[in-house]
Amino acid sequence: MSGNRAYGSKTFKRSKAHFTDRVTADGRDGWPVEAGRYRLVVSRACPWASRSLVARRLLGLEDALSLAVADPIQDDRSWRFTLDPDDRDPVLGIRFLSEAYDRREPGHPGGVSVPAIVDVPSGKLVTNDYQQITLDLATEWTALHRDGAPDLYPRALRDEIDSVMADVYEDVNNGVYRAGFATEQKEYEEACAGVFRRLELLTPRLARQRYLVGDTITEADIRLFTTLVRFDAVYHGHFKCNRWKLTENQVLWGYVRDLYQTPGFGDTVDFDHIKRHYYQVHSGINPTGIVPLGPDTEGWLTAHHREELGGRPFGDGTPPDPVPDDTDRP
Amino acid sequence: MSGNRAYGSKTFKRSKAHFTDRVTADGRDGWPVEAGRYRLVVSRACPWASRSLVARRLLGLEDALSLAVADPIQDDRSWRFTLDPDDRDPVLGIRFLSEAYDRREPGHPGGVSVPAIVDVPSGKLVTNDYQQITLDLATEWTALHRDGAPDLYPRALRDEIDSVMADVYEDVNNGVYRAGFATEQKEYEEACAGVFRRLELLTPRLARQRYLVGDTITEADIRLFTTLVRFDAVYHGHFKCNRWKLTENQVLWGYVRDLYQTPGFGDTVDFDHIKRHYYQVHSGINPTGIVPLGPDTEGWLTAHHREELGGRPFGDGTPPDPVPDDTDRP
Repeated sequence: MSGNRAYGSKTFKRSKAHFTDRVTADGRDGWPVEAGRYRLVVSRACPWASRSLVARRLLGLEDALSLAVADPIQDDRSWRFTLDPDDRDPVLGIRFLSEAYDRREPGHPGGVSVPAIVDVPSGKLVTNDYQQITLDLATEWTALHRDGAPDLYPRALRDEIDSVMADVYEDVNNGVYRAGFATEQKEYEEACAGVFRRLELLTPRLARQRYLVGDTITEADIRLFTTLVRFDAVYHGHFKCNRWKLTENQVLWGYVRDLYQTPGFGDTVDFDHIKRHYYQVHSGINPTGIVPLGPDTEGWLTAHHREELGGRPFGDGTPPDPVPDDTDRP
Repeated sequence: MSGNRAYGSKTFKRSKAHFTDRVTADGRDGWPVEAGRYRLVVSRACPWASRSLVARRLLGLEDALSLAVADPIQDDRSWRFTLDPDDRDPVLGIRFLSEAYDRREPGHPGGVSVPAIVDVPSGKLVTNDYQQITLDLATEWTALHRDGAPDLYPRALRDEIDSVMADVYEDVNNGVYRAGFATEQKEYEEACAGVFRRLELLTPRLARQRYLVGDTITEADIRLFTTLVRFDAVYHGHFKCNRWKLTENQVLWGYVRDLYQTPGFGDTVDFDHIKRHYYQVHSGINPTGIVPLGPDTEGWLTAHHREELGGRPFGDGTPPDPVPDDTDRP
């Protein structure tokens, strides 16, 4: 993400995604699902973009939907491909993600955000609608899913999934940002209290059941995971969500390690990108730009014992294969 | 403390105490130990000043050496008595600690720091030598100690105590400040690594024995305590010493809780003063001035089981009585 008014305004407001076309099976917006046609642009730092990294892996869409990884540090032209040879994305041939936005709509009013799906032949941005992209990967890209792909958004459970995700979005996914970017004590305290109130509500639920909804991994778990995996590394200190560390909540720490150790989750996570992005880009809350050495990460691979709760991680499906090539590995 | 060059210089340097007169039994510097003559000025936020709060309580010097508590938030005239009626210390009659410094030496070159001992009759600062003050309370003020006061600096153990304190000072007491005020990544990383290296060296020692030196509480424990009690509250996040929280190190977390629950230690601690001071005064590293809600503090009173290691907290002495009156209670 990061097309937001972070500072200067009294209350942090997340800007609405501006380009909401959808890539669908029937191509009704002019963008039919097609292997090799689109490029997914992400930052591995960004929790919103990382949702699509996880979904792409779980669904086995790596060959159908190629991946561009932006530098975790934006400059004044926003996300850039400075990790690639000649500072250019090798497929799109552009140096800044904003070039794809400009091709779609010169002088577009919103910010430049990830995740973004770009149409490779035209070089145009198709969508940066982070809430819809993963749902469409799960429900519209089915013809290209791998054998054994899980159903991440099962029809029978959608009401419950949507309800859980709405609460998690408001209080947790976005709540940590409202806490971190608050410029007034009251605003911070409300957001921070909301983060922990929601986490404490989720704790007994996740003490009883292995996943948030039903007995398999769903989109709801993906969305909670990408925030929780960043919690101790950046939200705890940098965003002051510090009532306790995740490591101090045995249920949530077990839950997030279980997912982290599941193929398709942990193999998308790059703590170096995460920490450098938050601590170096947000100069308004970390003027020195110094990136902390901690927290220690060896704990992520320790036993979590969540299997004892039962559950079928992939339902009738199977786990994805290991990360296929080096370009996809953090 | 806080007469330091915190920002602007490449490397954080703690300024030397400027006034090093000593209050002694024989009065050789002109300041004989005398009940009721001196006033101890502290901030409860400050780890250096808090050493003298602990020593005064353990030794039972409350009646002999009265106490002034400064506002945890300094202004451009430094420590001030804005917690008192009419913003004036009721005994010294001054609004700013700097007035006692000025009476001692007009235009003195150093900063204004706590702890400070002020001579009440003349209103002059006697000493702000934080390293010496507690040693003198332990060894020079003996005629005024309570019955059952412990020997905090036993002669037979001084070499070992001095050696432990020197390492703890360099790597931990001052190391957290070097980490927190670093303006360059390398400088931060060296300081932060040093903090945890020293804590990890101390861990097996404190797994074997209840206190740092010998089998009783000494000055070495006081000096480690006043840093550790602030560790999760301010050094972990604000100073980025975040490899782990103290709560994640079972030995040190047990050690610091044991001391916290010992009369004379925890009853000097005010987490509100601590957090507001660090987060609101250091605008160079926390420009918003927002004070975090966390960490939760209920854990401080949980069982630590350190009795199982043996040890005699007060040696041949006894614990101090509860805090005698409201003015002394945080």
